[in-house]
Amino acid sequence: MHIGFIGLGHMGGPMAANLLKAGHQLSVFDLSAAAVEALVGAGATACDSVAALATARPELVISMLPAAPHVKSLYLGDAGLLSLLQQPTHLLDCSTIDPHSAREVSAAARQAGHYMLDAPVSGGTAGATAGTLTFMVGGSAEEFEFARPVLAAMGKNIVHCGDSGNGQVAKVANNMLLGISMIGVAEAMALGTSLGIDAKVLAGIINTSSGRCWSSEVNNPYPDVLENVPASRGYTGGFGTDLMLKDLGLATEAARLAKQPVILGAAAQQLYQAFSLQGHGQLDFSAIIKLYTKQE
Amino acid sequence: MHIGFIGLGHMGGPMAANLLKAGHQLSVFDLSAAAVEALVGAGATACDSVAALATARPELVISMLPAAPHVKSLYLGDAGLLSLLQQPTHLLDCSTIDPHSAREVSAAARQAGHYMLDAPVSGGTAGATAGTLTFMVGGSAEEFEFARPVLAAMGKNIVHCGDSGNGQVAKVANNMLLGISMIGVAEAMALGTSLGIDAKVLAGIINTSSGRCWSSEVNNPYPDVLENVPASRGYTGGFGTDLMLKDLGLATEAARLAKQPVILGAAAQQLYQAFSLQGHGQLDFSAIIKLYTKQE
Amino acid sequence: MHIGFIGLGHMGGPMAANLLKAGHQLSVFDLSAAAVEALVGAGATACDSVAALATARPELVISMLPAAPHVKSLYLGDAGLLSLLQQPTHLLDCSTIDPHSAREVSAAARQAGHYMLDAPVSGGTAGATAGTLTFMVGGSAEEFEFARPVLAAMGKNIVHCGDSGNGQVAKVANNMLLGISMIGVAEAMALGTSLGIDAKVLAGIINTSSGRCWSSEVNNPYPDVLENVPASRGYTGGFGTDLMLKDLGLATEAARLAKQPVILGAAAQQLYQAFSLQGHGQLDFSAIIKLYTKQE
Amino acid sequence: MHIGFIGLGHMGGPMAANLLKAGHQLSVFDLSAAAVEALVGAGATACDSVAALATARPELVISMLPAAPHVKSLYLGDAGLLSLLQQPTHLLDCSTIDPHSAREVSAAARQAGHYMLDAPVSGGTAGATAGTLTFMVGGSAEEFEFARPVLAAMGKNIVHCGDSGNGQVAKVANNMLLGISMIGVAEAMALGTSLGIDAKVLAGIINTSSGRCWSSEVNNPYPDVLENVPASRGYTGGFGTDLMLKDLGLATEAARLAKQPVILGAAAQQLYQAFSLQGHGQLDFSAIIKLYTKQE
Repeated sequence: MHIGFIGLGHMGGPMAANLLKAGHQLSVFDLSAAAVEALVGAGATACDSVAALATARPELVISMLPAAPHVKSLYLGDAGLLSLLQQPTHLLDCSTIDPHSAREVSAAARQAGHYMLDAPVSGGTAGATAGTLTFMVGGSAEEFEFARPVLAAMGKNIVHCGDSGNGQVAKVANNMLLGISMIGVAEAMALGTSLGIDAKVLAGIINTSSGRCWSSEVNNPYPDVLENVPASRGYTGGFGTDLMLKDLGLATEAARLAKQPVILGAAAQQLYQAFSLQGHGQLDFSAIIKLYTKQE
Repeated sequence: MHIGFIGLGHMGGPMAANLLKAGHQLSVFDLSAAAVEALVGAGATACDSVAALATARPELVISMLPAAPHVKSLYLGDAGLLSLLQQPTHLLDCSTIDPHSAREVSAAARQAGHYMLDAPVSGGTAGATAGTLTFMVGGSAEEFEFARPVLAAMGKNIVHCGDSGNGQVAKVANNMLLGISMIGVAEAMALGTSLGIDAKVLAGIINTSSGRCWSSEVNNPYPDVLENVPASRGYTGGFGTDLMLKDLGLATEAARLAKQPVILGAAAQQLYQAFSLQGHGQLDFSAIIKLYTKQE
Repeated sequence: MHIGFIGLGHMGGPMAANLLKAGHQLSVFDLSAAAVEALVGAGATACDSVAALATARPELVISMLPAAPHVKSLYLGDAGLLSLLQQPTHLLDCSTIDPHSAREVSAAARQAGHYMLDAPVSGGTAGATAGTLTFMVGGSAEEFEFARPVLAAMGKNIVHCGDSGNGQVAKVANNMLLGISMIGVAEAMALGTSLGIDAKVLAGIINTSSGRCWSSEVNNPYPDVLENVPASRGYTGGFGTDLMLKDLGLATEAARLAKQPVILGAAAQQLYQAFSLQGHGQLDFSAIIKLYTKQE
Repeated sequence: MHIGFIGLGHMGGPMAANLLKAGHQLSVFDLSAAAVEALVGAGATACDSVAALATARPELVISMLPAAPHVKSLYLGDAGLLSLLQQPTHLLDCSTIDPHSAREVSAAARQAGHYMLDAPVSGGTAGATAGTLTFMVGGSAEEFEFARPVLAAMGKNIVHCGDSGNGQVAKVANNMLLGISMIGVAEAMALGTSLGIDAKVLAGIINTSSGRCWSSEVNNPYPDVLENVPASRGYTGGFGTDLMLKDLGLATEAARLAKQPVILGAAAQQLYQAFSLQGHGQLDFSAIIKLYTKQE
């Protein structure tokens, strides 16, 4: 399939490369010439503007951008993609943005005669490179079926979440819970060890009991409970605190617009913010346990 | 083995019955004559006082009582079990109490020449009846090995958590995390559904993603996401909100004494308290989701 | 002075009326014909569009609108006030909006050759009618001095808070603190009375001690501690919970953009949101004490 | 009046000295010989035990001790003051303890034929020395009238709070509110200044507006907003974070026993605990603002 790909950063770059590997034809655009060059080296065709990409008439356009303003700017407005595309086109935005904005863009796309899916991912840069991302997809069943084989070249878990915006809803709800449960594990581990139990023994009990969760089993924040996790290498790698902060900001803002209380979700956001303020925003979010342990 | 059993309530009664089934000889005591009668009918010998039970010279005494004051009253003091027992005896307290009190009682027991384990359980009355409880055990390795076969008649997961009090530490740490993660799931489900996603779809995504936890997979608080859980039968059965409140009280009080912050743990305690205040203390703790959804 | 006034609602209407009483000449605009009629009856000149008002060439334009989107829509854009006004004009926005948006509009106004102040108010509709509002004003000293006499016709406490946006900053910071301290008073009164102390005795002690604050002294949330406050008349009148929610939303959103934690501020927002969800959004915000007392 | 005084520490010492200055006859006891010596130098008579003090037959016994266990140990038990005093005596405990314990001791005192008041203080060591303490007093009207003239020699604000324990109730409720509002002020000042407003300007607006409170007007946590406050001298002096923690522990524990939610009160406790964990427990509690500002 001829696919246009816009946004070739840490996530978009390896995602696009996997599409090339799967045999798709790619027209690519990014503000960074270096990012474009890398993909061209792998077989993509460079476009020097969004307009040029639209003119190439791809069947499907995929975007992977940092935040809602970039997405709105790309699709909407006078020189936006929606007005540039001359024929009905399938659009697939993989950016993580708020559900409200995702629905605004999708509605505008349909109004302009296009098809559109929101499809935020989880799995990080490792998953993007390995082609093992999870895609949470919002849009109609027909749109979803059209895009599914393409998504399968970039991920292994492709979930249809319902209508437009629901991909974003699934992601913010899941990540808000993740942000809360990580702090819960951090508090439980800090409390238990301060009361004298061995960290591995405690983690073992939690992991076979009603406290078990991804944050205890897969990314335990206590150092050296698990191997090959951020906590056992100084909290490097992983999912940065500032990225968790971005997602919690999306969740609490979506909650505000929906008039929906999220008491622990908002508390978690503020605790990560307090932690980031002290200069730890680049550490894996499991480093939040440092708030609960005496620092030298 | 000749075992003394003190405290034959909703938990202690079926636990004692399982010991009888396993072939042990039981001397039992409870303030409720009816509770004693039930066990006598199953083969136990009734004692009409703690002193009488002590005089029967059991090799092991098991206690299952509501709270720390009952445990202290049973073991310590002038007419307490520690002074009544005339020979070194193995003692096993299965009550859920604060680690500080557990350690105080254990230390007194050792001082008096006895052996003592703290061994709080999880699994509820269903697990007590089925003999599938989890025991979290604090005490020496020798004490643990002595008691292990007896515990195996009442439970299927017998974990040595380290020295005295660590059984209680494991339980309060795990249950604090449970209390937090249940609220986290409640908020995520309430947020997601208020933003338009189907509850089962959202739960399915969470359960295969980084938000997954016991509270989403096994006891999801959203009605009709899972069958045979409290949320799908009006929040009856299960683990009552007021029992969760008791455990969160133990956790935050232990944290206070250890000068250990537990920010979300304390928030969770207060939210369950606010929910209980409105008359919902007997509902399964997953009913906390009602705080987040419009009530008629 | 010839003043243009846009937005004649519950606040803007009486504010404009006070300007007429002070002898100013008013050109007014509102989407509601009835609101315009009321002011015309008091001596104002009606404009049937923003463009018509701009054509009337007022020396000063005052706007009083519900939220940031309305303010941006009025001032910015192709048919916005900034492009309609043909000569340098003093602009004064009394709407309560986020500081970021206020600064964006002010910067655009200056770029277009105008002068602009942000001047949100406190004091409610009673203060608007009585001409006793507090104005928190952001902008240059010269702009402030120009507008001060006009503001003095509508309020009695006119404070220069520094550069553009600082009026909004002062308001969101003050109101966030107000939202927190009201809940603090509610918790202290609920705790004290549940422990047996008389509510008036407790309020008396707090008001002469280190807990004293506006929420205890002037708007105590416990019924019948003070006369003539919402708590003593079923929480009617006063400052609605949903208005407090709006201001806390502005505060936490401004905090998020500034990467500034506001832990209790965010908690307060969520608690008012939970209270509003149960149908109490129209009650004075002191009604939050109902979260802490058993409801029939 | 012949008064027995037990507990001559940082608070009790200067309080006893003020009683001597007012012409009362004092029999004193403390575990610290140096503390006793200091009072003897000022005219008191030393007792080498509580029993000796009881034998001296004072009309009134005042105690000022660190915590509930000390108070219970002094009054209750086999060798406690209640059994040592041979004639009905007025008892006045100025220690800050939980209301539950205060009521337990008062009930025991009455049962033994004595009169008893709980009378915790506020005002710190400066107030103790200057004789300007506030006393919050629980007990009967007759008991209160008997003690009032004596209290007047040590304080200037003597408030009868109702029956036994209500002095403690008033203190924990007020101090919980104080702990919350200080964090509220810290967040408001940190938010405002991070958004660009001058700290003194913001404090000025808050202090004439609905956010005003003791923590903003008298002990503002932002450096150099006020002179002669801890914030303007490195947070030395004042009311230590660990003392605030003690009072918040009393408040949340009393709330737990009363099944009363205190959501922000518990959050405040945890935040001070997190701050203390990082080594700041000796700083004035207004130093909590450091949680909200970037530390070098």
